[in-house]
Amino acid sequence: MTKVGIIGIGITNFGELWDKSYRDLITEAGAKAIIDAGIEGKEIDAIYGGSMTPGLLIGQEHIGALIADYAGLIGIPATRVEAACASGGLALRQAYLSIKSGVNDIVVAGGVEKMTDVTTSTATVALGGAADQEWEVFHGATFPALYALMARRHMLEYGTTEEQMGMVAVKNHHNGSLNPNAQFQFEITLDKVMSSAPIARPLKLLDCSPITDGAAVVILASEKTAKKLSKDPIWITGSGQASDTLALHERKSLSKTEATIKAAQQAYKIANVTPKDIDFAEVHDCFTIAEIMAIEALDFCKLGEGGKMTENGDTALNGRIPINTSGGLKAKGHPVGATGIAQAVEAVLQLRGKANKRQVKGAEIGLIHNVGGSGATSVIHILSR
Amino acid sequence: MTKVGIIGIGITNFGELWDKSYRDLITEAGAKAIIDAGIEGKEIDAIYGGSMTPGLLIGQEHIGALIADYAGLIGIPATRVEAACASGGLALRQAYLSIKSGVNDIVVAGGVEKMTDVTTSTATVALGGAADQEWEVFHGATFPALYALMARRHMLEYGTTEEQMGMVAVKNHHNGSLNPNAQFQFEITLDKVMSSAPIARPLKLLDCSPITDGAAVVILASEKTAKKLSKDPIWITGSGQASDTLALHERKSLSKTEATIKAAQQAYKIANVTPKDIDFAEVHDCFTIAEIMAIEALDFCKLGEGGKMTENGDTALNGRIPINTSGGLKAKGHPVGATGIAQAVEAVLQLRGKANKRQVKGAEIGLIHNVGGSGATSVIHILSR
Repeated sequence: MTKVGIIGIGITNFGELWDKSYRDLITEAGAKAIIDAGIEGKEIDAIYGGSMTPGLLIGQEHIGALIADYAGLIGIPATRVEAACASGGLALRQAYLSIKSGVNDIVVAGGVEKMTDVTTSTATVALGGAADQEWEVFHGATFPALYALMARRHMLEYGTTEEQMGMVAVKNHHNGSLNPNAQFQFEITLDKVMSSAPIARPLKLLDCSPITDGAAVVILASEKTAKKLSKDPIWITGSGQASDTLALHERKSLSKTEATIKAAQQAYKIANVTPKDIDFAEVHDCFTIAEIMAIEALDFCKLGEGGKMTENGDTALNGRIPINTSGGLKAKGHPVGATGIAQAVEAVLQLRGKANKRQVKGAEIGLIHNVGGSGATSVIHILSR
Repeated sequence: MTKVGIIGIGITNFGELWDKSYRDLITEAGAKAIIDAGIEGKEIDAIYGGSMTPGLLIGQEHIGALIADYAGLIGIPATRVEAACASGGLALRQAYLSIKSGVNDIVVAGGVEKMTDVTTSTATVALGGAADQEWEVFHGATFPALYALMARRHMLEYGTTEEQMGMVAVKNHHNGSLNPNAQFQFEITLDKVMSSAPIARPLKLLDCSPITDGAAVVILASEKTAKKLSKDPIWITGSGQASDTLALHERKSLSKTEATIKAAQQAYKIANVTPKDIDFAEVHDCFTIAEIMAIEALDFCKLGEGGKMTENGDTALNGRIPINTSGGLKAKGHPVGATGIAQAVEAVLQLRGKANKRQVKGAEIGLIHNVGGSGATSVIHILSR
């Protein structure tokens, strides 16, 4: 099977973008990626678009065809992929598989969400669709509440502290302050996190990622085509995906994410690398506790040591393994369907050596980790120069 | 690349199933398919689920993980695919591509929709998500209205009559009367169609497919595995997919479906067959005019001759090329996300020679054709003994 490379990237600003529609966002990111790849639209064989809940947020389904239509790529096979907040990561994986299959040669993988055209309560209901509607949402659970349960359990089992969670937010805001596309380009202090309003204890406002508008696109090609079209293709050397129960109460453990553990094992095996080989990672920090659990599940540290690893500075931009150099979902923003692709954009920038003030020196291998719901979907890719 | 075969099928009854939930339906179809394939759940490598608009119909997204969870297949990569009413057909295509890629060996492709838990007006709004929200739905267009525009144009350009459209419904109800899974297992007369209530002239109630609950599942395997596990695998010998503008007004023609023409050309080429080689087809007859336009776009007759072809009896069960032996969307029912997979189930039954009273004698090659919206997505598969 052919190797698959990323030859183009595009991303919009992330934030509350009152003057841009869903269609504007995905078209802007797509046009940037096509220009970056130096290709023409007619060279594209297929489109995969990740979007979580446009039916509830903008009254529109049939997203694949919409993207092809508004990108001026009418006729091209276009498919929407959905796995809640992992929709983008799974769009990337389908694009990758479709090239591996030999059916497609150049494929667009995009992600988009327009979340601010509805009230916050409507957005909360829409995001609830990622959890178990019958066993969780119907009974009043929201996402901060579900992650708060996981945080409480992690604190109980491992002694993780609210301060350690807060340090994730402080770090990611620092990184976001260096990212011109980020929703929050400012630093925060640990005091500010600790004194921010409680959302679902122990999680406070500054432990939570925001509601965001945004889109991101990457363009993939087979090895032969990538080498022909690009002077610095970034290779997808591993891909893994796994699922877990939709509802938290059915899991064996609340303090670890089995789907991420499984998906990581697959991806490491395919890429033939170990966690020690990873130079940086973008992980799914929808809440600060999620980043702590992610770095444990990815085996960057032992289970239970994610809090300490953060406190030690190992995950900082100049640490042992920089995590969320983009600012992560916390500071870059979290337009749910776009997040998995935005992670790929950051990884490509790092591996090209074009991440400017947030560049990880000598970055050769990066990992991206995208989660749906409270962990029922996990998808991981390993990228390499 | 490996050939891909279908080794198992499962389908629920289609209809207004008040005692069955979304979860019940997909689990029932999945269990039937697993039993039919004679495999164990742990042999399955991945799941692709087609569903159009569960966010609006049942308040649930994250459908891939939901299916894996409720099927007892926790851990397995599970992905939802959406392309409006072509969601099922595209789930089939992604499953097929993922086996071609060499990454998966045995893959489930399912489709499901639960449409009757909401009012008809809510279902109409949800289905509107398949059209262009900003240019069509916002201005009051519904799906019957959009297809009525196409019907009017087809009548004007080609002299197609309301009676010819009605004959599609009469034929499909006859076929549905022979299908124990169909929503409408009764015959209707042309008089009854012609005197049924107008919905969007020239389309009347009996020109329209119903709102339906249901699910269908097929299990795919690589050539080697399919031959090992099944005594009569049905091969997917061609797959094609294309897109068109989401909104009708942007198309060059209202009287033909370009996406189907393109997808058919791809599928025929890959399968190395011509339309003359096709023994039967399941086509997307969401409205009677849609079947007429489909058989033209699939090149079973010339453009404009679909009405006459129907009137001649060429598409009847004992005709030159039987169309919608299952009863089609019109009589079998149209649980939107399930439809594309249900078409595959019918084709496999025919090719196995197990379609009982509606068996097409000597069926060797069948075609299935699934459309999203008013034609912005078209996906076609060719299946062979």
